[in-house]
Amino acid sequence: VRAMRQPVLVASTDGVGTKTRVAASLGRFGGLGRDIVNHCINDILVQGARPLFFLDYVAMSRLEPEAVAAVVAGAATACREAGCALLGGETAEMPGVYSAGELDIVGTIVGLVERDGVIDGRAVTEGCAVIGLASSGPHTNGFSLARKVLEGADLLAPFDGATLADRLLEPHRSYLPAVDALLTASLRPLALAHITGGGLVDNPPRVLPEGLGLRLREGSWPVPPLFRELVGRGSIDRLEAYRAFNMGLGMLAVVEPGSADRAVEVLRAAGEGAWVVGEVVAGSGVDFA
Amino acid sequence: VRAMRQPVLVASTDGVGTKTRVAASLGRFGGLGRDIVNHCINDILVQGARPLFFLDYVAMSRLEPEAVAAVVAGAATACREAGCALLGGETAEMPGVYSAGELDIVGTIVGLVERDGVIDGRAVTEGCAVIGLASSGPHTNGFSLARKVLEGADLLAPFDGATLADRLLEPHRSYLPAVDALLTASLRPLALAHITGGGLVDNPPRVLPEGLGLRLREGSWPVPPLFRELVGRGSIDRLEAYRAFNMGLGMLAVVEPGSADRAVEVLRAAGEGAWVVGEVVAGSGVDFA
Repeated sequence: VRAMRQPVLVASTDGVGTKTRVAASLGRFGGLGRDIVNHCINDILVQGARPLFFLDYVAMSRLEPEAVAAVVAGAATACREAGCALLGGETAEMPGVYSAGELDIVGTIVGLVERDGVIDGRAVTEGCAVIGLASSGPHTNGFSLARKVLEGADLLAPFDGATLADRLLEPHRSYLPAVDALLTASLRPLALAHITGGGLVDNPPRVLPEGLGLRLREGSWPVPPLFRELVGRGSIDRLEAYRAFNMGLGMLAVVEPGSADRAVEVLRAAGEGAWVVGEVVAGSGVDFA
Repeated sequence: VRAMRQPVLVASTDGVGTKTRVAASLGRFGGLGRDIVNHCINDILVQGARPLFFLDYVAMSRLEPEAVAAVVAGAATACREAGCALLGGETAEMPGVYSAGELDIVGTIVGLVERDGVIDGRAVTEGCAVIGLASSGPHTNGFSLARKVLEGADLLAPFDGATLADRLLEPHRSYLPAVDALLTASLRPLALAHITGGGLVDNPPRVLPEGLGLRLREGSWPVPPLFRELVGRGSIDRLEAYRAFNMGLGMLAVVEPGSADRAVEVLRAAGEGAWVVGEVVAGSGVDFA
């Protein structure tokens, strides 16, 4: 940790939801460790905080050592990539509480941000640009709906150059490198929204000042095949899809209108998928035009 | 938080184990919130750290709002009593992962300790005295065995001036006031052992230097009726009982031999149950004489 003037501690606890069920049904646990770490990293990143340390909790009815080892190894890798200490963790065996073969994974992250570097959305105004950052898949959200839609489907069937299972289980991305690239280019976002439960509908309003909303332009970013497939198979209503899934955007960044093109350029140079996907408008909530 | 010279952050994540099953079967959730907070407080207190903030995670198959509210209210009370911020939390609904009506509760605590105030057991030597601090019940350990022994029993039957349920579910005690009383009297413990999973057998050795063990004297502290009942009903082997349960001692403090009587006096004046229960001996592990 570099010397800081007025460090503020930021912390968050979360789980990965029923993505665990898909992973458990396929015996593929490694991605879940990355999922929980990167989910937590993004949760505090939206305030401008960098991860300091992380702790995990893994519980099952009967602990399966290979499953736990795979989760922890994935978490360790993701922590290392983020320069975050994996400070500790706990495993719990709770017969009768968990269904056979199922597991829950809980992560807690603690990070630091300079008091004057806190990102809080206060400076967002009408006309600001919204940049969408590519997700790697559903991340850790929408799995209840996805599992319903895919009930009975062969998850190992070829799909989009891989399998449905691969596309569903692709680990949650960390947007720490993306935000770092913006900061390095002196393009500090005015607001960041991590697209988790509630999707593109419920998450962005939480980081906007009263009286402001978002207009997102459909077609301004590529919706990955998995989401098209889920929406098609399940005949999912358009707004329901935007609420259940990230639809290809794992994080939104609000920037000054004049900085949008430069920000996209910087993000793409850093290897991120990034598009200007909309703007801040008077009103509330998110509408899709 | 008072100004500190060289603050060290300490953190811990843990759950309350299958105590949740007894609580859920009786619809009595409030104690679980106190359980997880106080368990976490004690987990970092053994390093000399004071709680700074706490986060909780509560998950069920289908969230029961009254259950979640009761847990969180209990956690809030325990945090307030400890001067610890309840920084946030998360609830998760995970059908298929959790059995119907069951829940898991995970807590994460972050605390601070002055670098030169870290309690690490390094100064413990042969002949040091061991003080036992009274538990309020099984705390959050031994519930798998307790539930097995009590299978089919009427938990609402009168027992020890209350009911078996009351004695089982009595919340985990925080030893922060006890340790505060010792510090205020300039009686800093050389080592502290929180008696959790592994009981009086497995926890104390973790905080002792290589080559040292404990001798605990049976009869030197009162074993509460609940433990006697469990041991009797289950014909539990003596060592198995010491490993599964705290047997009436929720924390052990190692002090200089000459300070033992004064420490007990200070603790009792602070309202704690406290006894000199043994001493540090050459060797390893814990033996019961």
